[in-house]
Amino acid sequence: MPQSTPQARQAEGAASAPEAATLADLEAARERVAEQAVVTPLLAPPELARKLGYRVLLKCENLQRTGSFKFRGAYNVLAGMTPEQRAKGVVAFSSGNHAQGVAAAAEIFGAPATIVMPADAPAIKIANTRNYGAEVLLYDRYREEREAIGERLVAELGRTLVRPFDDPGIIAGQGTCGLEMAEQAAAANLELDRVLVCCGGGGLTAGISLALEARSPQTRIYTCEPAGFDDTARSLAAGRRLANETGARSICDALLSAAPGEVTFPINARRVTAGLAVTDEEVETAMAYAFRRLKLVVEPGGAVCLAALLAKKLDIGASETVCITLSGGNVDPARLAAALERNPEV
Amino acid sequence: MPQSTPQARQAEGAASAPEAATLADLEAARERVAEQAVVTPLLAPPELARKLGYRVLLKCENLQRTGSFKFRGAYNVLAGMTPEQRAKGVVAFSSGNHAQGVAAAAEIFGAPATIVMPADAPAIKIANTRNYGAEVLLYDRYREEREAIGERLVAELGRTLVRPFDDPGIIAGQGTCGLEMAEQAAAANLELDRVLVCCGGGGLTAGISLALEARSPQTRIYTCEPAGFDDTARSLAAGRRLANETGARSICDALLSAAPGEVTFPINARRVTAGLAVTDEEVETAMAYAFRRLKLVVEPGGAVCLAALLAKKLDIGASETVCITLSGGNVDPARLAAALERNPEV
Repeated sequence: MPQSTPQARQAEGAASAPEAATLADLEAARERVAEQAVVTPLLAPPELARKLGYRVLLKCENLQRTGSFKFRGAYNVLAGMTPEQRAKGVVAFSSGNHAQGVAAAAEIFGAPATIVMPADAPAIKIANTRNYGAEVLLYDRYREEREAIGERLVAELGRTLVRPFDDPGIIAGQGTCGLEMAEQAAAANLELDRVLVCCGGGGLTAGISLALEARSPQTRIYTCEPAGFDDTARSLAAGRRLANETGARSICDALLSAAPGEVTFPINARRVTAGLAVTDEEVETAMAYAFRRLKLVVEPGGAVCLAALLAKKLDIGASETVCITLSGGNVDPARLAAALERNPEV
Repeated sequence: MPQSTPQARQAEGAASAPEAATLADLEAARERVAEQAVVTPLLAPPELARKLGYRVLLKCENLQRTGSFKFRGAYNVLAGMTPEQRAKGVVAFSSGNHAQGVAAAAEIFGAPATIVMPADAPAIKIANTRNYGAEVLLYDRYREEREAIGERLVAELGRTLVRPFDDPGIIAGQGTCGLEMAEQAAAANLELDRVLVCCGGGGLTAGISLALEARSPQTRIYTCEPAGFDDTARSLAAGRRLANETGARSICDALLSAAPGEVTFPINARRVTAGLAVTDEEVETAMAYAFRRLKLVVEPGGAVCLAALLAKKLDIGASETVCITLSGGNVDPARLAAALERNPEV
């Protein structure tokens, strides 16, 4: 539950940071990504609404190119680089979805790409990143600093580092998801009462926050994180950036951030009502529900918002319309099979 | 390859049958099903287009309520019954998707439903049908006549038999899928050069044929069937209804029809260019592709059109736009896991 309102936190100073991205940046990003990205469907499955007792909209970013929303931001950043910069190539460090987004965007532009990934990333993410033609360097998630590895490559090869979330171009790119969400809801004559966003470093949340601030300002926004990685939830409550305890583990490989971003947090602090956290068990139930009932492949980190709704983390009225992101679908079959086995009746 | 053109077959007499359903019937069906069915997305995954070399549109009926297009026809028929008829209840015989469609529609109307299903139907289909509140009677697919069982129930209980495909109300309901397809393509400024339809008894094909006859008459339509159950392909080539050899087997449980329908075939003979057939191995590859690349859960019978494209059953030019149905997603996890295991590189 929120400890302070977004307005109160704004008064505490979060909004004094310069604006990282504006609505104009989001609209420019949309023109760029429209060339290559998918306008993902906003689904309203009747059986899910019936089960939960209110209207639910699913923004299906698992159906985005590369299987996650990350292509939006990565493509926007690469499209904004000069041909000379792109020719020198790009570097990214990522648990896998940003990796694929950058690799796919680099392939489109013919830019060399080196991606630094944790050795325990899902096999599908490593394989897909390589399939897009990128060079993949693996590191130990628990022992090495991926940022240092990425920055060394920049210095050695003259490449451009494409950050996973703390970059105005990334935030503007992810914000195109929020623009679509607002327009698709309006086209269906629906007001978005609440929007839940899968949150790691906060790039998607910041992008959607900026989009909805302009297009649906009455919407209450919530982040969803894995238990043990609820840095944004705790930071929102505290009004300042707090890191996670080290050593926590979660199946939500896409959301294992250390702390809220420097650029993303001020935006999110201004607009997000509260942060929610879900357990791995709740995430597995949501993945099984998505498979069996929705016919959608959703990865653990992409299922945290659905998990929050199914586990009733919010008290939502029957007249409300709630939109959630299904932010990615890059899951290894064995991981999904385990979730299905442990949830035979979902 | 087609042995005769649709026009030639029409001259041979197929069009002399009275029209089973008209465009007006389809439009009336659409008004009815709009109350409860999903307008399923028409996706255009860039990576699939890149792989195949032409534009591909996916009509995602696996995302339809109950996990297949069958809800459209079933709901249309139940909505067209009198309250007195509905109070007496309905009966259906079905391998599973029509079963769920009828059961879900009956639940919405509060009508008792008894569904006769083969004992070897996927567990998910039997469980879901029961979850919608229907009574399920199992029979031996290879030893008992499901039609006789269904008709006995009608005589004994005064129930209405909801046929799986050979019924104008069913065809009109499935045709709403074709109306959406034509309108969604037009909204994206795309002409449908070819449409491939998953085909069992031919209800979806007939509905889509009628819709496209009115809304996109230049489109060439193809049926896709499992090898060994290519009765429609052979019947189209012969110009008359031919049954399948008995004893054939396929993983495409939704498409194991005995012969083209009496009502559906004249429509399909008039409009369908040719029928294609795919092997179980080709279907498994398509299911694996849908899971890994498209993040969609597609059942074997729902994957036959994608299988036909991936296996290059048609020679398609780079300038063409091809739309295929993904007609259902009700697959047991073990069946999909086996397909993924046998296709590790897809």
